Amino acid sequence: MSDASRGNQRFYLDDLRVGQRFTSGTHAVDAAQIKAYARQFDPQPFHLDDAAAKGTLFGGLVASGWHTASLTMSLLVGSGLPLAGGILGAGGEVTWPQPVRPGDVLSVHSEIQEITPSRSRPERGMVKVRSETRNQRGETVQIMLARLVVPRRIGSTSAG
Amino acid sequence: MSDASRGNQRFYLDDLRVGQRFTSGTHAVDAAQIKAYARQFDPQPFHLDDAAAKGTLFGGLVASGWHTASLTMSLLVGSGLPLAGGILGAGGEVTWPQPVRPGDVLSVHSEIQEITPSRSRPERGMVKVRSETRNQRGETVQIMLARLVVPRRIGSTSAG
Repeated sequence: MSDASRGNQRFYLDDLRVGQRFTSGTHAVDAAQIKAYARQFDPQPFHLDDAAAKGTLFGGLVASGWHTASLTMSLLVGSGLPLAGGILGAGGEVTWPQPVRPGDVLSVHSEIQEITPSRSRPERGMVKVRSETRNQRGETVQIMLARLVVPRRIGSTSAG
Repeated sequence: MSDASRGNQRFYLDDLRVGQRFTSGTHAVDAAQIKAYARQFDPQPFHLDDAAAKGTLFGGLVASGWHTASLTMSLLVGSGLPLAGGILGAGGEVTWPQPVRPGDVLSVHSEIQEITPSRSRPERGMVKVRSETRNQRGETVQIMLARLVVPRRIGSTSAG
């Protein structure tokens, strides 16, 4: 239950255990960020324009789900998941139970769910991580189940 | 097998059928785009810096998986999936079989896999779509299985 992300430790596969939890720092989302991402990657009215968004099923401006995923990644890389070798995703599953709106302050709460050393590659393994992205009211805006490649301490050339 | 995305038709739930395919336009990825996305959302050496990326398991600069997902969304919104009401994702599954590199030209090839009218909401339904993002060599760089909310023609106020 302790917040393992406080401190400068970088975790190798061998340092992780199932149930281990990590908490990221926070990121405040505003309308300008939502629109800037949308203009580049998801130019739909409910992500671009406050007035147009009011007439949609969201009832107002909301962030693209992929923007929420991108912000989640940035929080994980910045502080939320201090893995040796960085965060190397092979893929995963994403759900958006509710949208991110201007003014939301996001943080990411991760839990190690599965640890599988590779049989063919002794220097690494696969880890399943469940990351919940929550807003300032504790509401979950994204659930991500990710498969990550994590190096082993054994055979590694750099210290953690 | 026909490319249903040519033309200006917007598809309601009632217009879709399982097996129907759509193809997007193309997007050329360069190193500047890869680094710009990475600086904002995924600042890891293999996404940020050519020289540093050479020493990683990628052997060179590669796009963040979330950048690939974002570019896929932009291709789907632009031309790849002409759904009435836009592209409204409830979530999905993403796999990156191989990374996107500078010089890659991406396109998205989608197929309708499942169509489920809502029992409680007669004006809409859920559609499962499989979208493959491919590079100029036809190699798959992302597979996405998405659950989308699609309005029905019945009860809709605007023509397609």
